[in-house]
Amino acid sequence: MSDSEKLLDTIPRALYFDNEDRFFILDQTKLPTDEMIEEQKDVEQVYDSIYQLKVRGAPAIGIAGAYGLVISLKNSLDLEIESFLELVYKNAQYLNSSRPTAVNLSWALNRLSKIAQDFPKDKTAKELYDVLKHEAILIHKSDIETCRLIGEHGAKLIREGDGVLTLCNAGALATGGIGTALAPMYVAWSKGKRFSAYSSETRPLLQGARITCWELNKFGVDTTVIADSVSSYLMKLGRVDMIVVGADRVANNGDTANKIGTSSLAINAKFYGVPFYIACPYSTIDTNSKSGTDIVVEERGKDELIYIKGQQIAPKNIKVCNPAFDVTDNSLISGFITEKGVIRPPYNFSK
Amino acid sequence: MSDSEKLLDTIPRALYFDNEDRFFILDQTKLPTDEMIEEQKDVEQVYDSIYQLKVRGAPAIGIAGAYGLVISLKNSLDLEIESFLELVYKNAQYLNSSRPTAVNLSWALNRLSKIAQDFPKDKTAKELYDVLKHEAILIHKSDIETCRLIGEHGAKLIREGDGVLTLCNAGALATGGIGTALAPMYVAWSKGKRFSAYSSETRPLLQGARITCWELNKFGVDTTVIADSVSSYLMKLGRVDMIVVGADRVANNGDTANKIGTSSLAINAKFYGVPFYIACPYSTIDTNSKSGTDIVVEERGKDELIYIKGQQIAPKNIKVCNPAFDVTDNSLISGFITEKGVIRPPYNFSK
Repeated sequence: MSDSEKLLDTIPRALYFDNEDRFFILDQTKLPTDEMIEEQKDVEQVYDSIYQLKVRGAPAIGIAGAYGLVISLKNSLDLEIESFLELVYKNAQYLNSSRPTAVNLSWALNRLSKIAQDFPKDKTAKELYDVLKHEAILIHKSDIETCRLIGEHGAKLIREGDGVLTLCNAGALATGGIGTALAPMYVAWSKGKRFSAYSSETRPLLQGARITCWELNKFGVDTTVIADSVSSYLMKLGRVDMIVVGADRVANNGDTANKIGTSSLAINAKFYGVPFYIACPYSTIDTNSKSGTDIVVEERGKDELIYIKGQQIAPKNIKVCNPAFDVTDNSLISGFITEKGVIRPPYNFSK
Repeated sequence: MSDSEKLLDTIPRALYFDNEDRFFILDQTKLPTDEMIEEQKDVEQVYDSIYQLKVRGAPAIGIAGAYGLVISLKNSLDLEIESFLELVYKNAQYLNSSRPTAVNLSWALNRLSKIAQDFPKDKTAKELYDVLKHEAILIHKSDIETCRLIGEHGAKLIREGDGVLTLCNAGALATGGIGTALAPMYVAWSKGKRFSAYSSETRPLLQGARITCWELNKFGVDTTVIADSVSSYLMKLGRVDMIVVGADRVANNGDTANKIGTSSLAINAKFYGVPFYIACPYSTIDTNSKSGTDIVVEERGKDELIYIKGQQIAPKNIKVCNPAFDVTDNSLISGFITEKGVIRPPYNFSK
């Protein structure tokens, strides 16, 4: 077992596919109180798991879609190839509708559908099944490798004794591997560097408190949870040496859409001279978006601000502004930690 | 009835004392779901109301202490003056221990105790009672007037159509009058100016969502609640024209301790060129503190971050950093809205 395989083995996994073609996910909606692994037995169950955010994070959803399609086929291997193909398309389309905006989901399912479409019609359903399964495993392995490389490049930026702050969850539980923003922390820690991680709780859905704290804590990284407004306070005290967060979409000029609160963190980092990094695979960079103004920000429902876990915390008839993301200006970003290395400004990814 | 009396009459009150010497508070721990007015019948009840934050906010606590002392005496008017005096001291000391760090509470109780101490010993308990009651009402009236003046001065800064953002609750429910940070909004709105108020929810204790939204909404100000990390997003969109918050303590050079998150707001405001104001009475300015480095920040318990309303949202064994306040640098503050007018930089309050 290589060092990186050993590392992967000690980090919580969002999902896995075993030698008997069984597909399992960790139900993230139950975190941090319950750690429940759930076998996915049919296509409806996988749809629900993605829809209900039991599995979440763009890379993880893509892989879940691919494995979900595979397990939805495994009891139909005695079908004629034409009927089997119809089942592939139908199930891929159905799974793709579970979270229509997740680009990795449609990307993975389209990749499998294309392979099915091009498959010789004189072969058997079983033969096609094996090819699709192989491809799903390949998608997963490729994500593991991307995360590993992001971790290796990013770990060099973390020094012994540093304070490293992150927002939301761009960790192992958002990917098939060791995460994006958290990957540098896992690699650095596994190489014996000791530092303090700060996890911003990330209102309104608290992915930082619920998920990032859970996975870092489980691995053994020294982790402190803070309210989102505390990051500035810690920077003023000199307790934060580096900020690293993930990205939902990066424009060609480096403007970056990520979880709401990222932009405020970056502005505070600039004010206090703290390096601010985005960790993301190249697949997150959308060179068709020239700048952040091309990125549309999704607004979510009122109830996320009026209730927490069913408890009312604001007047029911109050107005709510609940954007899911914000766009951070490229001038505030010290670098992008990618599988190809750390990219420094000025940014022009299409070149 | 003057305009300002009419305004005060239409705004939710934290507390009041009626013509039959009865003292009532609004139980703020029940907001925003229940609006419960509770008569305070004895000194233990007032102690508990302050201790349990049913009444909160430095000015409101001072007034509650004064009225609490008065009602604790009203059934003992047939005592000899010496025994009555002992009761005054004992109850004042007891009430003062309900929140030992609240400077307004000890200030108000010391003021009443001093009057009792200097009172001619040949007079009756009833005569001393009347003097103390008169003084408690005076403390309350003086706070009402201070709030009114802050409101008048601050209202001139709000223009028709503005977006005005605030954090935490420095409103009517924190004072005896129309508040400090919210006073300019009440005065401007009552004069017919129409603007949009934004209330930052203020993690971890959610005073913005629970209390500020409730009182502004009740009065009829157009109010939107946001997660604390959304303020920067709104500034980027140009939807915030002014920020106004309260203060817990202002140093002589203008450095200001206030609710955690204030400093991050001010840094974002500087970045986007949004005017940033502190609204506070002169009594909040501590000229003995030369600068913010003289101000000690209270750290609060873990559970405020690990649980919300009894529901666990982070791993139980995670570390927590939970400062109640932060200190905003004077260079980030556009002005102090006080009862004496708007004070502009450079700040040197002892001059």
